[in-house]
Amino acid sequence: MDNNIAWHGFQGDSWKNEINTRDFIQSNYTPYEGRAEFLTNPTESTNQLWSKLQELQKKERANGGVLDMEVDVVSAADAYGPGYICEELKGKEKVVGIQTDKPLKRAFMPYGGINMAEESLRSYGYEPNIKLNEIFTKFHKTHNQGVFDVYSSEIRSARRNKIITGLPDTYGRGRIVGDYRRVALYGIDYLMEQKVKDYENCGNGQFTEDDIRLREEITNQYNALKRMKEMAVIYGYDISRPAKNAHEAVQWLYFGYLAAIKEQNGAAMSIGRISVFLDIYIQRDLEKGVLTEEEAQELIDHLVMKLRMVKFARVPSYNELFSGDPIWATLVIAGMGIDGRTLVTKSDFRFLHTLENMGPSPEPNLTILYSSRLPKGFKEYAAKISIDTSSVQYENDDVMRPIWLDDYAICCCVSATQTGKEMQFFGARANLAKCLLYAINGGIDENTKAQVAPPYRGIESDDMLDYEVVVKKFDSMMEWLAGIYVNTLNCIHYMHDKYYYEAAELALMDTNVKRTFATGIAGFSHVVDSLAAIKYAEVYPIRDDDGLVVSYKIEGDFPRYGNDDDRADEIAVELLKNFMSKIKHYKTYRDSEPTTSILTITSNVVYGKATGDLPDGRKAGEPLSPGANPSYRAEQNGLLASLNSVTKLPYSYALDGISNTQSINPDALGHSQGEKIENLSNVLDGYFDQGAHHINVNVFGKEKLMDAMEHPEKEEYANFTIRVSGYAVKFIDLTREQQQDVISRTFHKKM
Amino acid sequence: MDNNIAWHGFQGDSWKNEINTRDFIQSNYTPYEGRAEFLTNPTESTNQLWSKLQELQKKERANGGVLDMEVDVVSAADAYGPGYICEELKGKEKVVGIQTDKPLKRAFMPYGGINMAEESLRSYGYEPNIKLNEIFTKFHKTHNQGVFDVYSSEIRSARRNKIITGLPDTYGRGRIVGDYRRVALYGIDYLMEQKVKDYENCGNGQFTEDDIRLREEITNQYNALKRMKEMAVIYGYDISRPAKNAHEAVQWLYFGYLAAIKEQNGAAMSIGRISVFLDIYIQRDLEKGVLTEEEAQELIDHLVMKLRMVKFARVPSYNELFSGDPIWATLVIAGMGIDGRTLVTKSDFRFLHTLENMGPSPEPNLTILYSSRLPKGFKEYAAKISIDTSSVQYENDDVMRPIWLDDYAICCCVSATQTGKEMQFFGARANLAKCLLYAINGGIDENTKAQVAPPYRGIESDDMLDYEVVVKKFDSMMEWLAGIYVNTLNCIHYMHDKYYYEAAELALMDTNVKRTFATGIAGFSHVVDSLAAIKYAEVYPIRDDDGLVVSYKIEGDFPRYGNDDDRADEIAVELLKNFMSKIKHYKTYRDSEPTTSILTITSNVVYGKATGDLPDGRKAGEPLSPGANPSYRAEQNGLLASLNSVTKLPYSYALDGISNTQSINPDALGHSQGEKIENLSNVLDGYFDQGAHHINVNVFGKEKLMDAMEHPEKEEYANFTIRVSGYAVKFIDLTREQQQDVISRTFHKKM
Repeated sequence: MDNNIAWHGFQGDSWKNEINTRDFIQSNYTPYEGRAEFLTNPTESTNQLWSKLQELQKKERANGGVLDMEVDVVSAADAYGPGYICEELKGKEKVVGIQTDKPLKRAFMPYGGINMAEESLRSYGYEPNIKLNEIFTKFHKTHNQGVFDVYSSEIRSARRNKIITGLPDTYGRGRIVGDYRRVALYGIDYLMEQKVKDYENCGNGQFTEDDIRLREEITNQYNALKRMKEMAVIYGYDISRPAKNAHEAVQWLYFGYLAAIKEQNGAAMSIGRISVFLDIYIQRDLEKGVLTEEEAQELIDHLVMKLRMVKFARVPSYNELFSGDPIWATLVIAGMGIDGRTLVTKSDFRFLHTLENMGPSPEPNLTILYSSRLPKGFKEYAAKISIDTSSVQYENDDVMRPIWLDDYAICCCVSATQTGKEMQFFGARANLAKCLLYAINGGIDENTKAQVAPPYRGIESDDMLDYEVVVKKFDSMMEWLAGIYVNTLNCIHYMHDKYYYEAAELALMDTNVKRTFATGIAGFSHVVDSLAAIKYAEVYPIRDDDGLVVSYKIEGDFPRYGNDDDRADEIAVELLKNFMSKIKHYKTYRDSEPTTSILTITSNVVYGKATGDLPDGRKAGEPLSPGANPSYRAEQNGLLASLNSVTKLPYSYALDGISNTQSINPDALGHSQGEKIENLSNVLDGYFDQGAHHINVNVFGKEKLMDAMEHPEKEEYANFTIRVSGYAVKFIDLTREQQQDVISRTFHKKM
Repeated sequence: MDNNIAWHGFQGDSWKNEINTRDFIQSNYTPYEGRAEFLTNPTESTNQLWSKLQELQKKERANGGVLDMEVDVVSAADAYGPGYICEELKGKEKVVGIQTDKPLKRAFMPYGGINMAEESLRSYGYEPNIKLNEIFTKFHKTHNQGVFDVYSSEIRSARRNKIITGLPDTYGRGRIVGDYRRVALYGIDYLMEQKVKDYENCGNGQFTEDDIRLREEITNQYNALKRMKEMAVIYGYDISRPAKNAHEAVQWLYFGYLAAIKEQNGAAMSIGRISVFLDIYIQRDLEKGVLTEEEAQELIDHLVMKLRMVKFARVPSYNELFSGDPIWATLVIAGMGIDGRTLVTKSDFRFLHTLENMGPSPEPNLTILYSSRLPKGFKEYAAKISIDTSSVQYENDDVMRPIWLDDYAICCCVSATQTGKEMQFFGARANLAKCLLYAINGGIDENTKAQVAPPYRGIESDDMLDYEVVVKKFDSMMEWLAGIYVNTLNCIHYMHDKYYYEAAELALMDTNVKRTFATGIAGFSHVVDSLAAIKYAEVYPIRDDDGLVVSYKIEGDFPRYGNDDDRADEIAVELLKNFMSKIKHYKTYRDSEPTTSILTITSNVVYGKATGDLPDGRKAGEPLSPGANPSYRAEQNGLLASLNSVTKLPYSYALDGISNTQSINPDALGHSQGEKIENLSNVLDGYFDQGAHHINVNVFGKEKLMDAMEHPEKEEYANFTIRVSGYAVKFIDLTREQQQDVISRTFHKKM
């Protein structure tokens, strides 16, 4: 009955008889091939709310980065009464719901680790609640405690010495994207019924341990759906039934997401591929005449405003790794369908337009699934937004679609997962630059001098390094590293499932979800350049008094990755393939599918601090180059040559993504706005048509960054957003160290 | 250093270089082939303490069965300050330590299930603490909740209809015997060091999920050892080092056990095989002249007094199943070594003598590992104690030793496990009598009329039941039952490990412990007799209005189990073999070794209530006969014929034990005390030499029971103890229903 009203006018059948959001989309969406002219300005309500929120954000920054923190309530979907941006304006919020009872107040989330949760409170001057401490130390173990209860001394040493690093053992793993659209399309009651069916059929015949675990998880998911419903009731909504119109669709979907961010503080809390879905509801209401374009834009603006408000309590060490308070509310738009139609809708424009209506912003992490076949009008509008705001990233839909089909979302920075069907075991990364140094020093850490890896035979002579010898030793060391890395991640994900299971997100996914095991590589370009130096130049080890190789004398020149030079680029391809094949030698938790990424986010700075001199000439302590980027100052042949090098890396060996961040001087793109737009579009077409995976586009010069670093108080820099490796950030929110790192990157002055 | 003092004079090497309590025993114990004359009377302290304790026990009974209960403190080894039987006498307690802060006060133990823990409080008029309720419902899941989160509707139905029954899904599974002797022999610090070593080598190379689980368990064990040490400090003792003398040995060992009963309230909390171990310390001190026989006996008396004080908070439904407040502090004595020497020591006499020094008592559950080769002096003393107190059970060491070697203990009533090397997943039992009725009625329960099993084709005609047809249907139904039974136990033990892991007990066991999966059979004799009736007499089904078979018309006579008649006894053997083979068709949790028992404890009454009319003539609602006992009134040929029938059941198919409970009129054993002792000894020799497994020996007539039932207030009945199936109980503590059941059993008036 409810469904007939809610679904009135919608086409298709499959999605009505089973959960199948993609089928609903394919049967009902309206591709848009036009231009941006239809877009409207923000409404008065939007301006009032946004200006109120900006006030709060200013206060937050003035207050040292945190406005308020919860001390006494353990966060859960139904832990709070209703909360609003501001009591006086609460009738104007078209999309309601915040994480706690007050805007920008950070929730208390101890399940990942009580120590971290308390440390984050103390860092900002709050005193933890001792009763909660007792509960989460004496009665309920946390994820973090679980992990450290099983780590071997070898793993502890590898973690302490940072050869494996950034791992989610002290914080939530994140990177799980619930299909929040299901809440709107089906209502919670239907989703609960389906979970009951899955439960009844789970482990038919014989219950194995895997079945028992899954049965308990389904029960936990079912209970999470119940809490979601209760949370909506607190805000005056009944989401047990499907959404009836665009307003409800946006609100229902957001409630699904809100439950997730109330119950989890993972390193990436992405919202997924929601634009084309919401557009169907908006289009229906527009056609019925019950919604205007202004109202449609207002819904999107208000949803985006909510996504700009998401905050988690973090500790200083986390902020060092992931600078600028990101939460990766990654929201993907555009892309092409497997039937050849574009998935661009008017709402994809509307989401980009929020960057104009409310100015640039790092969140949501707007991601365009790119194809040169995207409609011209959209490509040009996207390029314009990039040039104006530097807030957007691009990922190659043409290389991802054959693997993940056409309803995938990006779950963090660059990692695709099929929406509602797939989750990722996030595994941060192995520092391969350090691994190369371990190979040379026989497993001894060049900084701490600890024997971290097994005592393999290192380089014992002081002669010029022999390429074949080094490669062989590096290969053995990488084999060891892959094994311990997989062990470590197995511990982490076992414990995360056990003590901090993402019931709210997984409740909105298929029960028999596919799992990937996402490893990662740090120091990529430095290993490539170091091996190229050893192969093509003359590199001599320099030892300290203990005989440890701590630096290198390099004589002669050598090819470097980032110049479209096959001599270096072939080493890069081999390195990737070799690492991936080694990871596959080991058994992964829950038979998950191993993948890897070349992505460091902003952790390149911290990783670099822990890494000694390298044979490519990089000095100890300097930041590693981020993601798959060529090393700083290595690129000598312009933007296109640099892009060509990165393009050679085969996506099929790095299915978790290959991140490339580039900054272009506005002048390098041309003189007029039109010329700039055309040139940027052409660059993207060319780059992605060659099979590259990802690019962060920044359009500004070094001078602007230097000015912003020195004068953060200037009004023009308040929302000045830049793309770093995999996400966007307000430049003034970066640590000074991170700012300097960004400034020292290559700014292409020519194409 | 400490070890040199503590171990001074002890022989052997192996046990000094690794944990090997058995090797220590074998290298140092002194077999005793003499008689009981050396035993001494209780000391003044013992009398004072015991009389104080009896006062408290009287108060407890007057108070409705519970003296006091904890409401606010969650039980743990280190949860309380020191507690004593009585403040004024505290200097007289040679062995200190009680479960809470006051004697007989029952601890609050919510990890098995918060609902049960609270219900037990409410049953005795206590109001649960709402803060603890919140913790164990909102933040920490309990074992019970975990189990019900994964049960299928089929399992729930099978549980509700009681075809599988008595399972530990609402209470602690128990039946895990820590090697408490290790605390005395090695001290806690050495045990902790060994756990660290095990941890370091667990999952070498590659961490599987099994390795990760075990690594976490080792950490939990390590932490439990720490708490044990802290608990001892509270009482003023440092158990980090080995015990130096007999007094410390008894105290250290008891501290190990005390930690277990503070942290677990399992259905059986056995203390194991401690007598021969303690005797070594006592013997050394006696020989050194630092201990007198009176003092030795006092140590044993005081330890036993502590075991008589152990109590758990229970709910009424639990008390119905296991009547008389038992905790199965099973303590085994005697037995023969695999080298042919007897393991009887003077201390085995001392433990039996506690029943004289402090009168009969159900706890500790004294169990004699019997062999006709035991020294004559001991056999006679044991027979005397049986005749005088009916507080002792006998189990056949000659059939167990070839399987469990010579350091096993009994972990509940009749189940052997190798001490410190083996644990059991306790699985209560399947009601095979009900299974037979399901076979006849096509899976429909004869009482509730619910379709519990799959709708197999039942007996559809009203003709005389055909033996071959019934056996075939019974076989199919048993196959279904075995599958769902294993599934259910897999759920239970997965969750018990997850939410109520026995860290304190397993800390005192080898890390790579062997696990048995202990299923059980209820209704055994009735199935045998029913099948015999169908085969040898004429049995016609009687249906109710719904066409369900609810009763049977039996024409003609038939052989019955319990008369040494092979026609019936062969059916019994086949039934056991068939059930065991079906259980083995299914995959058991943690690759545990499936076993079965024929043992119902006192649950035979409750099980009988839920079971309809049977083809052997037993009426609906009547108690089933307990364990492997022949049916009431079936035995027509005296004690020896009855024993002969039970003896035919092959122990190798029921490694978890075959329980047989017999009551003999004192007169049947002879006239003089000497004659009675000799006759009982001869009966036991004959019974066990034939390969029987177990017997509970009661020596009294029906008249005494009837008088005790009507006049429980008489002083002579205050400690009147009887053996029921697998344990002993004070007769006046049984429910009236249970008393009547005991009275209606066979009392052999002739041999």
